[in-house]
Amino acid sequence: MEKELGGLLDKLHSERPLVHNITNTVVTNFTANGLLALGASPVMAYAREEVADMAKIAGAVVLNIGTLTEELVEACIIAGQAANEVGVPVLLDPVGAGATPYRTDSSLRILREVKVSIVRGNAAEIAHLTGEIREIKGVDAGAGGGEAQVDLAVRAAIKLGTAVAVTGREDVITDGASGYVVSGGDELLARVTGAGCLLTSVMGAFAAVERDMLKAGAAAMALYGAAAESAVSASGGRGPGSFQVSLLDELAGLRSDSMSEGRVRALSLSPVIGGGAR
Amino acid sequence: MEKELGGLLDKLHSERPLVHNITNTVVTNFTANGLLALGASPVMAYAREEVADMAKIAGAVVLNIGTLTEELVEACIIAGQAANEVGVPVLLDPVGAGATPYRTDSSLRILREVKVSIVRGNAAEIAHLTGEIREIKGVDAGAGGGEAQVDLAVRAAIKLGTAVAVTGREDVITDGASGYVVSGGDELLARVTGAGCLLTSVMGAFAAVERDMLKAGAAAMALYGAAAESAVSASGGRGPGSFQVSLLDELAGLRSDSMSEGRVRALSLSPVIGGGAR
Amino acid sequence: MEKELGGLLDKLHSERPLVHNITNTVVTNFTANGLLALGASPVMAYAREEVADMAKIAGAVVLNIGTLTEELVEACIIAGQAANEVGVPVLLDPVGAGATPYRTDSSLRILREVKVSIVRGNAAEIAHLTGEIREIKGVDAGAGGGEAQVDLAVRAAIKLGTAVAVTGREDVITDGASGYVVSGGDELLARVTGAGCLLTSVMGAFAAVERDMLKAGAAAMALYGAAAESAVSASGGRGPGSFQVSLLDELAGLRSDSMSEGRVRALSLSPVIGGGAR
Repeated sequence: MEKELGGLLDKLHSERPLVHNITNTVVTNFTANGLLALGASPVMAYAREEVADMAKIAGAVVLNIGTLTEELVEACIIAGQAANEVGVPVLLDPVGAGATPYRTDSSLRILREVKVSIVRGNAAEIAHLTGEIREIKGVDAGAGGGEAQVDLAVRAAIKLGTAVAVTGREDVITDGASGYVVSGGDELLARVTGAGCLLTSVMGAFAAVERDMLKAGAAAMALYGAAAESAVSASGGRGPGSFQVSLLDELAGLRSDSMSEGRVRALSLSPVIGGGAR
Repeated sequence: MEKELGGLLDKLHSERPLVHNITNTVVTNFTANGLLALGASPVMAYAREEVADMAKIAGAVVLNIGTLTEELVEACIIAGQAANEVGVPVLLDPVGAGATPYRTDSSLRILREVKVSIVRGNAAEIAHLTGEIREIKGVDAGAGGGEAQVDLAVRAAIKLGTAVAVTGREDVITDGASGYVVSGGDELLARVTGAGCLLTSVMGAFAAVERDMLKAGAAAMALYGAAAESAVSASGGRGPGSFQVSLLDELAGLRSDSMSEGRVRALSLSPVIGGGAR
Repeated sequence: MEKELGGLLDKLHSERPLVHNITNTVVTNFTANGLLALGASPVMAYAREEVADMAKIAGAVVLNIGTLTEELVEACIIAGQAANEVGVPVLLDPVGAGATPYRTDSSLRILREVKVSIVRGNAAEIAHLTGEIREIKGVDAGAGGGEAQVDLAVRAAIKLGTAVAVTGREDVITDGASGYVVSGGDELLARVTGAGCLLTSVMGAFAAVERDMLKAGAAAMALYGAAAESAVSASGGRGPGSFQVSLLDELAGLRSDSMSEGRVRALSLSPVIGGGAR
């Protein structure tokens, strides 16, 4: 499994896919640098006048509502629909869904008007999208983990009709019928703003080179986790500032064999859930 | 004094207050990372549709006019008034006040329409808010210092009816009647964009856990200065890029006893000034 | 040559010119920190209400369309025309021109309505401004180099009626009649988002202290390249994250004699080209 997923990185390195991000003002720089480090070609563009053109030439479109406004939501929908027309995968990061009604509503509106391939969030954000109430504080809450996290992802995938990734101490991605659980990463990721946003964009880069969204997402989560672990070593416990710098270094140093064995395991879902409410 | 103020950091660590920032596009990332490093929960949100909701669940609201627009000024006022309704402290950073009339006017408009708990700026910015003319160049000017700086802060506090912090080589915070002078920090802070903006947000984090705004502000300035001094050592004279990274590391490493004795002294203001024009 | 150009850095250090940037949300922080490191005074301001005031007190105005919107294009034109009125040099970075029609059109609109002193871009961006079709992918494409790059810069300078800098493996600046070729830099610059945007702003800082735009541009490119090379050494091959931090450190460490001999050579253009269609 790890070998197959690792092979996607070679593909990414040779194709250098263009990842079109409509993202928040907090993480634009870090996201662009992370994608460049990984070997992808990032572009940020959000004017109504150009988002459709940009989305159509992209390998993936990543929508992120971290600092949303009406203009940005409209840009997300225009870009998403343009991507849908030409078969470019669209990813959604519902940053802070649940923190305010506006964020939840805007995420759901995008999900209604755009065919999204992957939604990635923490447990609290995903729970709010499915109408389950969870505590959320700011935009960084919700570690989750274990069976409950898998169940949440499965329920959300079925309800939203898209692949859903719930990330935290462990990462899960599923379309409701099958999927993967990925271990690894480091809690220092929670001390760097935009670490989750960058992961969604990294998923976008893999979705641009692999049609199976579950494999693309699993490869992204596994390699990102591996880079984070290397960054912990490289930054030697100095703190979150050094860790962030090292994370970019290590993303650039990733190779197809950077993932240790046993990092990814396939989800075995019961047929009742898999054949449920879809 | 240092011990009491240091204790506020323990409180901050255990409460992890949500700090709602409406800030400029230059410093969003650094501000969020600085607050995360400190142990607070940052959120950036500026859409009219959600700022009131976000402000009401926050521990503090920080308004920063570094790259203001009409929409942003309105968002500041909506968020500030919502915070006022529920007793959440509001801080204002009048970045570049005086550089253009628009910045001065917008700062004063916010001060008229919102009950602000602390205004923090450099000497030139604060002087412009009180109508005193000082040279200002860009948004980083005005080191100030000494008696003149204390006098300026006192005059501004009385005129604006709020606590005022004037930061520079020394930092002062006063409500016109009492206050603190804090020494420390490093001139490298002036070579990192947003070092002042982050300090205002750090003050916000302390204002969320301490009702006495003068103590909250003094704790923030003293601990921030201590972190800056540690960052100078940690970055070993390599330059402002390394210093900025180390500053985040050191903010994460702050403990309640990180402040050396003698860093903070109480202001003794003459009753004539203290009982003046309020 | 290197000595004369290096001397401009001393002038920059003593004058600390205010550089007014209207730039994209991806690079605001890095641009501001790079200018601060260099010794200039950056300011970011893009509200219609203040851009003219800011432009008039600046030493240079740098317009960058990396994440353009209608509001931003209008702000660019207002600021550019205000700068023109008082003789402040205006620089344009047409980020991603050619990637979408909107970017090309907006760049050309700015060039029609504002007297621009220097346009800086990569080969693909500049080619699109002159109507020559080149492949462009995202906003970071186009290394170019050699004779073709000089020819492109000359054609663009003549057609656009401004100095044009085409940067890549080598850097060229010309007004169509004379100019300079600058060698140096490092390919790691292509792995840091905004490395080109910052170079344009660094050119702005030099344009604020030297009326000859070709000399100002050549000094900026040569010193920036020298800083990049030092940053490669200082970051010891750790990767693009560390390189970016070191680049800021090394910009702060630049001195008038930091450029090795032979880095800059004057262009000798044939009179036919030089006396062409102007």
